[in-house]
Amino acid sequence: MGDDAAVLAITPGTSVVVTTDVLLEGLHFRFDWSSPEDVGYKAVSVNVSDIAAMGARPRWVLVGLGAPSAATEKLLRSLYDGMREACEEHGCALVGGDTVHSQQLLLAVTALGEVEVPPLTRVGAKPGDQLAVTGPLGLAACGVNLLLAGPDLAGLVPGDVEACLRAHRRPRARIAGGLALRESGVVHAALDLSDGLYSDVRRLAQASGVGVEIDESRIPIAPEVTRIASRRGWKAERLAGAGGEDFELLVAVEPGTDAGVPLLPVGRVVADGLWLVRGSERVELPPGGWDHFRAPVGPIA
Amino acid sequence: MGDDAAVLAITPGTSVVVTTDVLLEGLHFRFDWSSPEDVGYKAVSVNVSDIAAMGARPRWVLVGLGAPSAATEKLLRSLYDGMREACEEHGCALVGGDTVHSQQLLLAVTALGEVEVPPLTRVGAKPGDQLAVTGPLGLAACGVNLLLAGPDLAGLVPGDVEACLRAHRRPRARIAGGLALRESGVVHAALDLSDGLYSDVRRLAQASGVGVEIDESRIPIAPEVTRIASRRGWKAERLAGAGGEDFELLVAVEPGTDAGVPLLPVGRVVADGLWLVRGSERVELPPGGWDHFRAPVGPIA
Repeated sequence: MGDDAAVLAITPGTSVVVTTDVLLEGLHFRFDWSSPEDVGYKAVSVNVSDIAAMGARPRWVLVGLGAPSAATEKLLRSLYDGMREACEEHGCALVGGDTVHSQQLLLAVTALGEVEVPPLTRVGAKPGDQLAVTGPLGLAACGVNLLLAGPDLAGLVPGDVEACLRAHRRPRARIAGGLALRESGVVHAALDLSDGLYSDVRRLAQASGVGVEIDESRIPIAPEVTRIASRRGWKAERLAGAGGEDFELLVAVEPGTDAGVPLLPVGRVVADGLWLVRGSERVELPPGGWDHFRAPVGPIA
Repeated sequence: MGDDAAVLAITPGTSVVVTTDVLLEGLHFRFDWSSPEDVGYKAVSVNVSDIAAMGARPRWVLVGLGAPSAATEKLLRSLYDGMREACEEHGCALVGGDTVHSQQLLLAVTALGEVEVPPLTRVGAKPGDQLAVTGPLGLAACGVNLLLAGPDLAGLVPGDVEACLRAHRRPRARIAGGLALRESGVVHAALDLSDGLYSDVRRLAQASGVGVEIDESRIPIAPEVTRIASRRGWKAERLAGAGGEDFELLVAVEPGTDAGVPLLPVGRVVADGLWLVRGSERVELPPGGWDHFRAPVGPIA
């Protein structure tokens, strides 16, 4: 427990990794923000992302669906259409599940993958390692902020808005990236950015028993986020650092090595402490992300 | 899909089987009928039963827990205590999970097992096969009826009541039985009796593309059920035939062979139709069990 997925040793040389998530209407998704197809798609891809973060190849998905009486057959079919689409795009098969009557619409998704040992885990980061991510951040959080702010999109570039909403509604797991990172042999620890850089880097530090230092100026902000934040007066750095659901991979990597995929450096592993380097200061890493046990989807200020 | 668990081919000779179930307060369990430990225990063992039904060895369990704000830490700890107890008793490890805030308390359980190919499935029953179960039926349904009827237990043998309540609260999966049945090589199809003999035998018939004939007089009624039903004026045959959650295994087996475990014959596979032989008559197999998508836990008349 504690990693993105559990590693089950099946045969020498190959392991099965498995992860499960429960996604609830109102807490993890809203049908006024996402179509049923989007909700089904995302339920699968966020689970598959946990498999990708271990450098594993996703293979199988099972879904337990809980639906209230008011849910129409059309809605349920659309949810499954989205799940099947995500399975196809991520190269896995929907192999089973369960359907029950619940008060709140919910999807309990289990994803399984195969990995040649050793898989990537959160454990293993060493002081001196570089911290880096596989792509720019903040798109999904900016999408959520746009949805919270309402329908007035005056002054925004339509393509920017579309990119942010799509990142929120249809995230894709970084499967090829995860495989390449594992195969490189120079990645000491990895996880996927589901709750946000500031939150998830804490998890990596805690699991590895080390400290971390993030350079605020190097947090890679997606250009769409920079433009929208500038028009709206939002803090782009905060959207990229504290916002969740980017699903890029965060890695601790041997410095000066080739990790097999382009990486954007964001900081370094240190002996202890959780730090944000802001200009010439070093401050405590701010809180960030959302804790799914406590807070519903909310705005990133 | 369609079987108790999905079969994932991992390596030649060995497969992983995986199953997932969502269990909800009010629908699948009630805290005025079962302790939190019982609820956790049962959530695991009913999933493990799906693994046992395939002749597989259960190995790993993951649990997604959804808890409303009102759920105390003590309640949640007790649920996990029960889950861990069931894992220990069934020889598997709790390897992961997820915790979210939900309106209704729920447990999304995924169980995985390993099996040498081929596993037992619902497909393969042939006309002429004997239908048989691994043990007497009706205890859990009788337990539910007792709980529905209220606290007056006048005239009943305390040990009988205890056996029925225990069958409802703490069912055990038939792991050794499933393994022996698979190894015997003479079992053509199998499943576990979760929804009741009348319901589950239909599933076996449908999956195998055959008909079935159940001899009402041979349905093995647990003696405790016979005694309680007689005092209460309930129909013991109906509790044993239509009542769910016995978790005995139902098999279609080559007649006159040794299936590796003692079996109680209940009927035979025929070319088509779903029949109950009652005395010298052959009537349509009555409906039975509960469909978890429609009805909450309810009485068996």
